[in-house]
Parts: sequence; C-alpha cells; structure tokens
Amino acid sequence: MSVTSPRGFRAAGVTAGIKASGRPDVALVVNDGPSSVAAAVFTSNRFKAAPVQWSEQVIKDSELRAVFLNSGGANACTGPEGFGDTHRTAEYVAAVLSRAGSDVAAGDIGICSTGLIGERLPMETLLHGVDLAVASLSVDGGSDAAIAIMTTDTVPKTSTALGEGFVVGGMAKGAGMLAPALATMLVVITTDADISADDADSALRNAVSMSFDRIDSDGCMSTNDTVFLLANAASGTKPSVQDFTEVVTAVCLDLARQLIGDAEGASKDIEICVSGAASVSDALTVARAVSRSNLLKCAIHGEDPNWGRVLSATGTTSAAFDPWQVDVALNGVWVCRNGGVGDSRELVSLAGRDVRIDVNLNHGAETATIWTNDLTADYVHENSAYAT
Amino acid sequence: MSVTSPRGFRAAGVTAGIKASGRPDVALVVNDGPSSVAAAVFTSNRFKAAPVQWSEQVIKDSELRAVFLNSGGANACTGPEGFGDTHRTAEYVAAVLSRAGSDVAAGDIGICSTGLIGERLPMETLLHGVDLAVASLSVDGGSDAAIAIMTTDTVPKTSTALGEGFVVGGMAKGAGMLAPALATMLVVITTDADISADDADSALRNAVSMSFDRIDSDGCMSTNDTVFLLANAASGTKPSVQDFTEVVTAVCLDLARQLIGDAEGASKDIEICVSGAASVSDALTVARAVSRSNLLKCAIHGEDPNWGRVLSATGTTSAAFDPWQVDVALNGVWVCRNGGVGDSRELVSLAGRDVRIDVNLNHGAETATIWTNDLTADYVHENSAYAT
Repeated sequence: MSVTSPRGFRAAGVTAGIKASGRPDVALVVNDGPSSVAAAVFTSNRFKAAPVQWSEQVIKDSELRAVFLNSGGANACTGPEGFGDTHRTAEYVAAVLSRAGSDVAAGDIGICSTGLIGERLPMETLLHGVDLAVASLSVDGGSDAAIAIMTTDTVPKTSTALGEGFVVGGMAKGAGMLAPALATMLVVITTDADISADDADSALRNAVSMSFDRIDSDGCMSTNDTVFLLANAASGTKPSVQDFTEVVTAVCLDLARQLIGDAEGASKDIEICVSGAASVSDALTVARAVSRSNLLKCAIHGEDPNWGRVLSATGTTSAAFDPWQVDVALNGVWVCRNGGVGDSRELVSLAGRDVRIDVNLNHGAETATIWTNDLTADYVHENSAYAT
Repeated sequence: MSVTSPRGFRAAGVTAGIKASGRPDVALVVNDGPSSVAAAVFTSNRFKAAPVQWSEQVIKDSELRAVFLNSGGANACTGPEGFGDTHRTAEYVAAVLSRAGSDVAAGDIGICSTGLIGERLPMETLLHGVDLAVASLSVDGGSDAAIAIMTTDTVPKTSTALGEGFVVGGMAKGAGMLAPALATMLVVITTDADISADDADSALRNAVSMSFDRIDSDGCMSTNDTVFLLANAASGTKPSVQDFTEVVTAVCLDLARQLIGDAEGASKDIEICVSGAASVSDALTVARAVSRSNLLKCAIHGEDPNWGRVLSATGTTSAAFDPWQVDVALNGVWVCRNGGVGDSRELVSLAGRDVRIDVNLNHGAETATIWTNDLTADYVHENSAYAT
C-alpha cells in the first residue's frame, strides 16, 4: 500500500543506470485527476539543491500533475548547470507523458533528487530513465517507486491510511542526515480526497511539523529535503480540513517512524519525551538538545544508563526550568530526581531496541517528543565512505 | 614545564584510590605568595557540578591560595549532599595546609572534580588523598599534578610561556565532551607576574575566548568545566595587561590544541577556517556548525573529500552570505567555488593527520578558526562504556 493506494494515481520505479550498483534509481508518480491540487514543504537549508529550487517555483500555483524522482545523485551545489539539468528533466518528463496521452506541461512536474552533493547528473542516462518510467506506469506501481528512491535505506518505506470516504498513501526515503526542519528525505503523499489548495497546504504543514520535524537522527540537515502532497478528488469526498489533516498526519508519522527505525547504523530507537515544560517550544528545545548529544547516543548504544549526559544536554538550553527540580527516567526508572541522584541506575535495562527517555522539567504543563537513534560504529563506517 | 614553572608555586599529584584503575587521582596546586590574586571561568551549563558552585563563591573576592582537584568522579548532579562533600573537602584541605605551615581558610580553596556524573565521591578515600597530596607538595610537582587529573586523556597536558620578566605555566585535562563555552576540562594557569585582580580576570576571559572556546570535539558541554588563573607577584614584574594577556593566551592556545589532539578516538585534527565573514560572530557560527556535522566528521575520518557536507552545515546557519558566492577548500584545493563544483575532488589528499577546511563566505573581512577532530568508531566505543 503506497502512493498508488488512492484512486487515480499511477507510479513506476525503474533502473536507468545512474547507480553503479545497478539498483532501481528512477521513480515517477502521476496524478490522473480529475483535479491536480498540490502542496509541498522543502528543506530550510540555504544551500537548496537544483530540484528544490525548481519545485519551489512550480508549486506556486498549487498544482502538480506528476513528481519525478531520482536516486544516485542529489544535483545539489551544481550551479546554474545543475538547475538547467533539472529544467531539462521536467521538460522531457512533460513531453514523454504528453506523447503517452497525458497532456502535461513542465511547470506541472515536481522534481526530487537524492544522493551525493556536488556532482552533475548523467543526463542521457537519466532521460532514458524517464522513457522507461513512463512506459512502466501502473496503478500498482507504488511499491516499485518506493524501492527506486532508496539510497542507504535498507527497506522501502510506504504507508496508507483510510479516511471517511477517501484514502491517503505515501512513500519516503531517508536513512542518514535526518534532522528537523526535515530529514534527508524525499516524501510523496497522495490522496483521492477533494481538498482545496489552502487546506492541502495547511494539512501538510501541520502533519510535517508533528512528524518529520520531530525526528532527529544525526542533527544534519539536507539540501534536498522535500515533501509533496498530491490530491486529485477522485473519491468525490470532501473531508473537513481537521479530518484530512488527521489522516495525512497518520501517514507522515508512520513514515517518520520508519525513517528513524532505518537510520544508518542504528541499533536502538530512542523516544525522548519532555514533560512539565512551560511551552511546547521549550519542550522541543530540550528534547532536541538531548537527541543531539553524541555522548548520550553512544551511552545508549552501550546500554549504559548514563543519565548525567541527559542533564548535561538539558543544561545547555535556555528552556525555563530550575536545575534543582528536573527529573529524568530511563525506560521508566527515575534515576534522577530534583537534579540529583534518584533510583539506582542498576534497575535500568536498556537491552531492548526501544529506549524511552523521560525528562520532566516540573515547570509547566506542555510536552513534546523527539525520536532519535543511537550512535554506532556502523554509522561511522557507513558515513566514512559514502562518496568513494 | 607546568604549573610549577613560575616562582612561588608548589604542586602534587598522588593516588588516593578513587579510581578503580589505581592511577593517580588527586592533585593540589598551592600559591605561596606573596600575593594570591585569582580569576576563573566556569561552564555555562545550567547543571553546575558542586565544585563549580563552590568555586564560583570563593572566587568572588578574587583571591585563592590553592586549587584542589580530583579525577574519578565529577560530583555533579549530586544535590545538597554533593555540595556538602565539596565544602568538607575545602575545609579539610585548609586545615591540613594550615597544620603544614600555610595559614589558609576554606574560602581560599578552589575545587575541581572530573569523572562520572551522578555519583557521590568516596569521601574517606578523597580526604586521605588530601593528606597524601599536602605531604607530597613540591616545587617540581607540576608534572605529577597534570597526570593526576587525567581521565580518558592518553597524555598529560602542560605548557609554559615566558613573558618579559615573568612566567606563565599551566596544566589541563579533557578528552571528550569538548565543546565551546569550555570543554570538559579542568585547567589551572599559574603566574609569578604582579597583576591586579581586574587585569587577571580580563586577561583570562580574553585568553579563554580565543582558545578553549574555539575547540569543539563533540558539541557536548560539561557540568564541571573550570579554568583557574593564580597569580602571586613573586617575580616582582608588573606587565601591561596587553603583554600579560598575550602570554596567558599563548599558554591557553597550546593547552587547547593539546586537548583537541588527544580527543577521544580521534585520528584527524581538523582546523576549520572561515573567512570573508561580515562579523567574527558570523565566522564563528559557521565554523562551529561545520565542526558539529557528524556526517562531515565521518567523511574526514574516511579521507573522503565530501565537501557537500561542509555546505550543508554552512547552510543551516543564519550568517550573512550568498549561497552562490561561497567557496570551500579541503587541504588547499578549492573543490567548491560559488556554491558549486570547483576543482576536482580527486586532487585532495586527506591522508595526513592534519586537515584544513577553508570556507570563504565572500561577504566581509572577518575570520575565525575552530579546531575539531574526526568522528571514529573508537569514539563510539570509548563512550559506549564509560560508566560501566
């Protein structure tokens, strides 16, 4: 179940030959209408990849007919030539789709790329992939598309959720460089709901803020992060924006958890729950600081209940709290009470894959959760030799 | 050459038995006068260890007669009981020193602790260490003191610099949790210069801002970081504050480089030089962001000239620059020009231990340098099993 779960969408995932590994590397998602409402959220990194620069322009009219994606190259930091490559790709996708019977303009094509930064794409190979993808489009193509966008992912990520009379589907890729304000990730969400452009935009932004913005694998922010939402009204159902947002959020949360669960080299999935905060912003600030402590992430990897590293990270923030009132629990054992020694760390077991860290600031009623993972020798290994 | 290089200082480093390893774990530095001017800089972490809370109080009169340090336990997040332990230690040091002929009050004793957070110190063992240390005090004791404050350090760190008619000496410990606003580190600087309390304070703050605040090993900030400066006027020389600051800065820079060179598990020393910035603050912001990219630090470990990760980190900051004008060099090869592909990454060799990364923002005349190191499997290993 994936981007082709809702009615009126076709997709494909094919092998163009961009990746040296010979694995699938080009994907296409086509919205067959009747409507072509679209929304998007992009990386806030100031070095935006060429496909992000392109997509930011074409989404302005809130309409897209298709999204074309490639793995095996990010087309980031490639200058005006790289932007030209993206433009040429969009023109070519539109031409081939139009020849195949769908009347589409380049300005209706969103583009995503993922892979190494600072290298031009092999354009002849890529455009050949466009031909292959259009020829392979199918209402069952969602799984193939999800496979073709993988980079260091070990499994494809797809999700589907049912609303009342409409369906939301999605696919995602991303395994490293996961950080808030989006991860290194590409996401396409599809729906057959009948939704206005404004409601689609609002629903997507809310869903992203509660899901992809709350995972933080390694604190690194990508140049290519993109989340697209395509809506075609094929179900004939007009949900309320609240109902629609809820279902889109469910799909985004499911995909976000899959991303963090497949993070590079990770052996532990860590949930950091901050409570007792004066504001959600304070809770998020503390949870993010804790999630970015390399020392803590190493300790969790070693199954070492080193709660001092939770406090050290908390103490670097300006969130409202009194250090003498902060409590910390590891997997339910309150090892730190009132900023000092609590229950015995001997009581804590960190043997399982899932680890929960609670930080109670005892300074308010707000809460927030960030999902992260441990830091492992495998992460170092995987990221020591990515370009070579 | 160390804290006992200037005239009028004695030091000792002994084995009290706090560390399970049986290595030296208690150090004492005594200023024999004639004057006892002192200054200090402490961690900005809001969870301040008990010895930091104590030392912040006793430094208020800008006078110290001695600094007592222990490794094998941080006495951090140990509540009022932990503070009581520090207070008791200072009283005991003062009493033993007074019995030995130096008339000292507890309020003239600075205290430093380093080791695991969240555990009480073994006080009987520690106080026995005070007896041993006072009995071992010697004008040649600087090296022993530097050895006794080591935790995961692989080598002791000492430094000496000569001014015109005065000497500045120092020792430092710290190998992990190194981050700006001080590293996980304890530093004692001594001098026989005749300097006022205000000048000592200003010189120390300037020196720290140019040295310890510009190293960043793993972005983690400690609860115990302390830098003490003790000045006794034994040389009879009254340097200008400029001359004095220069010599203190030289010692601090030397110690800072030794700290980063001994960072846990590191195989590369990385110098990140940001130029063309609109302000020093902008230059520092960019250099720090680059120094904290786990992905980049892994790439450098793998000797992979993955300059896209430099731009990705730069792009997360709000420093003033135009992404289309940023240049990046790795070991002198400008692999990125104008935010895009520059010279071939094939030309870059990262085989040596020293790696230099240049980022030219081309947006002003200010510069700043941060020193960091690579991220290795050894770092993960060392920090996975610290408490256990």
